[in-house]
Amino acid sequence: MIAEFDIQRPDCKIRQASQDKIDNLNKPKGSLGALEEIALQLCLVQQTLSPKLKHPCHLLLGGDHGIEKEGVSQSPREVTWQQMINFTNGGGGVNMFCRQHGFDLKLIDCGVDYDLSSYSAIRDCKIDYGTADFLYGPAMTEVQYLEALENGRALADECIDEGCNILSIGEMGIANTSPSSIWMSLMGNIPLDECIGAGSGLDSKGIEHKKQVLEKAVEKFLTEYPEPTDEEIITYFGGFEMVTAIGAMLQAASRGAVVLVDGFIMSACALAATRLYPESRDYMIFCHCGDESGHRRMLELLNAKPLLSLGLRLGEGTGALCAYPIIESSVRMINEMNNFQNAKITKYF
Amino acid sequence: MIAEFDIQRPDCKIRQASQDKIDNLNKPKGSLGALEEIALQLCLVQQTLSPKLKHPCHLLLGGDHGIEKEGVSQSPREVTWQQMINFTNGGGGVNMFCRQHGFDLKLIDCGVDYDLSSYSAIRDCKIDYGTADFLYGPAMTEVQYLEALENGRALADECIDEGCNILSIGEMGIANTSPSSIWMSLMGNIPLDECIGAGSGLDSKGIEHKKQVLEKAVEKFLTEYPEPTDEEIITYFGGFEMVTAIGAMLQAASRGAVVLVDGFIMSACALAATRLYPESRDYMIFCHCGDESGHRRMLELLNAKPLLSLGLRLGEGTGALCAYPIIESSVRMINEMNNFQNAKITKYF
Repeated sequence: MIAEFDIQRPDCKIRQASQDKIDNLNKPKGSLGALEEIALQLCLVQQTLSPKLKHPCHLLLGGDHGIEKEGVSQSPREVTWQQMINFTNGGGGVNMFCRQHGFDLKLIDCGVDYDLSSYSAIRDCKIDYGTADFLYGPAMTEVQYLEALENGRALADECIDEGCNILSIGEMGIANTSPSSIWMSLMGNIPLDECIGAGSGLDSKGIEHKKQVLEKAVEKFLTEYPEPTDEEIITYFGGFEMVTAIGAMLQAASRGAVVLVDGFIMSACALAATRLYPESRDYMIFCHCGDESGHRRMLELLNAKPLLSLGLRLGEGTGALCAYPIIESSVRMINEMNNFQNAKITKYF
Repeated sequence: MIAEFDIQRPDCKIRQASQDKIDNLNKPKGSLGALEEIALQLCLVQQTLSPKLKHPCHLLLGGDHGIEKEGVSQSPREVTWQQMINFTNGGGGVNMFCRQHGFDLKLIDCGVDYDLSSYSAIRDCKIDYGTADFLYGPAMTEVQYLEALENGRALADECIDEGCNILSIGEMGIANTSPSSIWMSLMGNIPLDECIGAGSGLDSKGIEHKKQVLEKAVEKFLTEYPEPTDEEIITYFGGFEMVTAIGAMLQAASRGAVVLVDGFIMSACALAATRLYPESRDYMIFCHCGDESGHRRMLELLNAKPLLSLGLRLGEGTGALCAYPIIESSVRMINEMNNFQNAKITKYF
């Protein structure tokens, strides 16, 4: 493996005491459902019976994709940079939900096909002006892949050094459902056409065209790499914002921070991250299952039960951000709820 | 009909302008899913393109049930009053989520089988010390039914007079899944055994017993009332906290406030409310689909897509409270998100 991260699974010794604390809160056992599962995970990740959420950060990673030139997306390429600039003005989806939940939003240019250097609110982590078109060859070089991973590592480090212990990641990148579908297909061994959906709004004809393009690209890839490694799959098809996300996810896990996983694209990055380092899975909370065809199946691959299912398909990390108050509720539960003894309630099973 | 409420459907003239505003926000059309649907509903209910949420209130309605004596619940009767007192100390599930989301929590004794009059934090709306056992006759009299409805009306009025335009309702009442299942069965014309579940945690033997008891009760009822009205069904089986909830829901609707509907029991009350006044449906937001058998089907009867599905089965309105930030997100969306013009973004379909 090329990428190097030092990720340990959380020490399980605290599991029983955590479960006992949760079971003894004044409620029927298990009756707070997903909140109890999240609380247990937080206890394990943070190695405490009283987990806290500190300085939540949201990385908004932008990047363009060569494959967009093949007409696989409803939205035109320029929307990526236009939205990045819009985010600097506070009027995007990601902005309002970061404000609502107190997230520190960091806007990152990982590979947008536009010169954004005059926007001081946008961090320059640009690998290139978009990836190469993977219909004809690899989207990025191995050097670019490693550079993007390192950018992700540095971004996670920066957040954690500022006090963050819960990191959310979102993306802005026209056409990035295409690489996500291919990653899912190749890593999950699922027929490609079951992994492809409408993206931001293709009609059935558009989806058919997208399928043909992606099938052709995968066919060519498998001719050149008959038994590809995960990193070959990532490099050949991925986006710079996606690889940066993988780096950030892995580094967050290596430092014991929780990672909030958004929708289809970020789930594909989480899948890739867990293929490289299965231990990273323990640090991930899956926040939203969208309508994008195949997302539910990808979450099954990850053994993930998402917190929300609100039909969101905007990207930007909006699903992760909308799920944050549920995680806060879970933390309140374990820290603020009385137990049967101090509530003076007959313990009912 | 006995109950009298003056409920109007929202004027639909504002619908097109509301939808246009939502569709022109800088996102693919429909890509914020449920948030867009909620925003549209709020525009209609509040008759404005810029809806606001004001002074959210939560009514926690407590009541006991005669049918509990037949062993239909895992939890003992005394848990109702013990929990009511626990809520006055701030350590219950309902307390922490009200704190989290800034709800004004009002604790109401609608019919708890215990003298709570020394607790100043609990409002006395007690109709009686629990309902009668409906295995042998009506749970309440018509006079009690009307009194409970009036209590609900007065509670909603009080909240709205204080400035509330979004009312959440939760319950604490051991055994109240039983009347809820029967209401659902009789009002929805669904076989009773498809409406009965584990409540707070019955095992399969317990569920079987519960089914036998409820079937016997319904059989006797249908002998006496071969073609029952909705109000006869409500009165014969209902709880005081449930009828108070119906009154509060109907009055909130009559005054143009949004009603947040919690889990199985509150959905049964919503079903009853909409049977009495179909217009009230327009004011309801369904917040949570629990695991209780039949809840999904009941929501289908109500043509409702719940916002959350977190496996909660605590009651107390916890599902409604946990959904509140999603509704806040929806309001932020319509008020704070840029549109395509001021965001300077190419409008993509």
